[in-house]
This record gives sequence, C-alpha cells and structure tokens, in this order.
Amino acid sequence: MSKISLNLATTRAQWGFAEAVEGCLRAGITAISPWRDQIAAIGLEEAARIVRDNGLQVTGVCRGGMFPAETAQGRQAGIDDNLRAIDEAAALNADCLVLVVGGLPGASKDLPGARAQVAEGIAAMLPHARASGVRIAIEPLHPMYAADRACVNTIDQALDICETLGETVGVAIDVYHVWWDPYLARAIARAGRMKRIFAHHICDWLVPTRDMLNDRGMMGDGVIDLKSIRAMIEEAGYHGPQEVEIFSTENWWKRPGDEVLSVIKERVASVC
Amino acid sequence: MSKISLNLATTRAQWGFAEAVEGCLRAGITAISPWRDQIAAIGLEEAARIVRDNGLQVTGVCRGGMFPAETAQGRQAGIDDNLRAIDEAAALNADCLVLVVGGLPGASKDLPGARAQVAEGIAAMLPHARASGVRIAIEPLHPMYAADRACVNTIDQALDICETLGETVGVAIDVYHVWWDPYLARAIARAGRMKRIFAHHICDWLVPTRDMLNDRGMMGDGVIDLKSIRAMIEEAGYHGPQEVEIFSTENWWKRPGDEVLSVIKERVASVC
Repeated sequence: MSKISLNLATTRAQWGFAEAVEGCLRAGITAISPWRDQIAAIGLEEAARIVRDNGLQVTGVCRGGMFPAETAQGRQAGIDDNLRAIDEAAALNADCLVLVVGGLPGASKDLPGARAQVAEGIAAMLPHARASGVRIAIEPLHPMYAADRACVNTIDQALDICETLGETVGVAIDVYHVWWDPYLARAIARAGRMKRIFAHHICDWLVPTRDMLNDRGMMGDGVIDLKSIRAMIEEAGYHGPQEVEIFSTENWWKRPGDEVLSVIKERVASVC
Repeated sequence: MSKISLNLATTRAQWGFAEAVEGCLRAGITAISPWRDQIAAIGLEEAARIVRDNGLQVTGVCRGGMFPAETAQGRQAGIDDNLRAIDEAAALNADCLVLVVGGLPGASKDLPGARAQVAEGIAAMLPHARASGVRIAIEPLHPMYAADRACVNTIDQALDICETLGETVGVAIDVYHVWWDPYLARAIARAGRMKRIFAHHICDWLVPTRDMLNDRGMMGDGVIDLKSIRAMIEEAGYHGPQEVEIFSTENWWKRPGDEVLSVIKERVASVC
C-alpha cells in the first residue's frame, strides 16, 4: 500500500494539530500536512516539537499564496505573509509549502493580470524560500475557483510558471482539481520530466456535487479514476505519500476522526 | 452594437417558442436559438413557419449530444436521437446544431473512454448532418460538468476532435465555460485558423456562484471580461451574433421576459 499522509483539513472539524497527530499515530499514519491556522493554534514551536519527537514526515504546509491584490501595498502584505509561511514550513521541515495562488483582485476582470501578479509574487518570495531550504508547490485549482481562489487552473499553466522561476518551484497535484483535464497524462509526464511533482493530494469528485467548496468525496465514492492518475504520477517519478485532503461539511467532518482515518486506510488500499 | 441572438433557455420560465419570438421582435432582436423541447412543444412545422415568416436567423438548435452510454444499444439510441436533432436544425435552417456531448456513462470512471465514445458518436451522425447541410458545433462545457454533462471541456480538446472529423464540425464558444482557460487566446486563434467558430454564447460568471447549473449571471454582473473575449473571437474571423444564454432560477427566470430582453440589450451595448 502507498504511504498515506493526512492533510489536517480532513479532520479539521474533529481535531486540532496535536489530536490529529495522536489519531494518525493510532492509525499507523506517520505523515501529515497541517494548515497554518492549525499550526498557529498550538504554536509553531510545539508543532515542530511534535513533528520531531514523533519522526513525522510533513508532506506540505497549507498554505501560502493569495498574491493578487488591488494595490501595491496589498500585494506586499501578501508577500510578507508568504515569507512567514516559509518560516513555518522550514520549522516543520516540510517537503513543500503549498500555494493557493489567489483569484481576481477586488472587482477586477483582468485574469491575465492576476496571473502575472501570481508569478511576480512567487518570484518575490523565492529568495527567502531558497535560503530556507523550502520548496514551493503551486497547486493548480479547479477552474470553478478561477475567480475567487486560484487563477492557476491546470498543471501545464503551473509548469509554465515553474519554468520561468527555476527548479525549487513545482506543483502539488490534487486529483480533485485536475482529474477532468483532457491533457492530464501529458501534463503529468511533463511535470515528471521537469522533476517538479512535489505532492499528490487525493479525494474524490462526487456526482452530484452539492457545494462547490466543501463537498469533496472520500476516495471511491466519486468518479475519479484514482489508480490511473496514481500510475501516471509514479511513472513520472513521484513516489511520495498520497495526501488525503477532504473538505466535507455534511459528511466526513461530522464523523469521529478515528472512523475517518479507518475508512481512508481501507480506501487507499482498495481504490487508490 | 453587435447583433444579439436570444437563446430561448434565457426566457424558458417565462415564454414558449412563439411568445419568445414575439418578445424578441418587440425588442428588435431577430436571431434566436431554441431548445428542442421548446420546438417540440409548438411543433417543428409551426416553429419553422414562425422562423421563415419573420425572417429570423437561428444561430443554433440546442441540443444534440449525450453520446456516452453503458451499452451499444444505449449509444445507438443516442445517435438516433441526434439524427432527429439534425432534421430539426435543418428544418429551422439553423447555423448549427449545438452538442453537449455527455459525461461518464453509468458508474464508469473511464473519462478517456467516454471521450472516445463522443468522437465515435459525432462521426456516426456526420453523414446525415452533411447530407442535410447542418453544421455541428461541439460546445466545450466547464470542467465542473465533466462527470455528468460533457467530457469535452476546453476549446482545444474540441478542436482536436474537429481535426479528425472534418470541416463541418466546429465549436460553440460559450464564455461561461471557457473564460478561465489560461490558453484561451491561443485556442480561439486556432479555432479561427481552422474556421471552426460556429457560435458565440455569452452570460457571466457570478461570485459567488450559488448553484453549479442554474446560477449564471447577466453580462456585466460577474467577472468575465466579455469585451476581451469578443475581440479574440472577432479577430479569429467570427462576426455572427452574440447569443445570450442565461440559466438563472433565482433571478432572471423570475423576471418578466420583456424586462430581461431590455437588460440584455443594454448590457450587450455597454459591456460585451
């Protein structure tokens, strides 16, 4: 079975950082990906101590990004926040800092302009990231989030940015966001040739999807051909953990955390 | 001002075929795009008579498609239905028959397989379409519909299919479905070089979008840079009407049809 990482958003409603780690250890899961608010709630030093003392792999810190803003001041505030996120990722010895890059600033309709601001923002944070030994993973988000969350919407588009910025900038491939892409196999192969696959997130796409943000499915409950995508990713040279990231207001966030982890283990073994 | 076509889904809740045409004529709009259920409700002959007597341009008939099915029998039934749709488009002298190609058949997770069934389905209907003088417009749908409505999700993907099938197969470019595409300008230019832009649909993407199907916005109420996309499409050689297609359970479907058309005219003049 492929190694599992728990993205702590998956048990956000049930567990804080420390409880989630305890739950993971009970389930034999030794990799996590925490969110910055979860790190802040326990404190960075304590989070780092827990990671270190338990020998955990941190497959990513979620999240930096959100670069576009209406003013230069707003954009600088975004960059400053990303510099702090780099410090947190470094303190946790994370495999990467994941970026949700942001959408259209304010009332703007200038999508190419927003995309340029994203590339500029990443470029501005890169010196500190490199000095800190932190890799940056751009996460292309599903096109339905282009306006309000992330204007980087395909792996190819992310790789175009990576090419301009150099080799410590790569992609986090989340099946939820990219499964529909008609050029997915080609894009993953390209990411592999560039050695830029830094993370692999899994969940499932439900039919119907009742909420555009928080109705992600457990692997196997939806339509994504997870095994095929995993095969593409391994063929492309990435063999790290599959990171389970499920936002689910009406289902998985309502269940006991231990039950959620038990189902995750079963599904990764059977359908991923 | 660019010529307007009214996609009759926009006033589906208010008007049947004949009433919509009367409303259009009152508003000085002389192009329409009806749906097959609206044609069936009034009868094809009567619909054709109304079109002819009023000298209307029919910018498209909505819709053929829905090719993927779990069984050969199911796929044949789909093709048979598309042959009837061709007859209807021919009777109305429509510029094209618009295809919403269909998603994953049954419980399948085989997206490449579904896409192959789409190409096979279009190939099977083409001889009759060509004999009838009906052009086929593949409408790439937004990736959020990949599972359940259309597994053709970008202009480039549609053009790949067009290339294999020949020159009476093109694309209907609906801004709602393609506005997010990072390669949009390149794809529209490619469609222009291939002379395959058969229709241009407009509406807007609302933030937030409260329903994945029926919460489309009036032009100007959302984030799509309609003028820029129209410029790309005209640059690519398409100068036909802008066809207004708005599905809006909670807003535009609740207003009087004449009011909707009045706002459409104002918005096309100001923001499209």
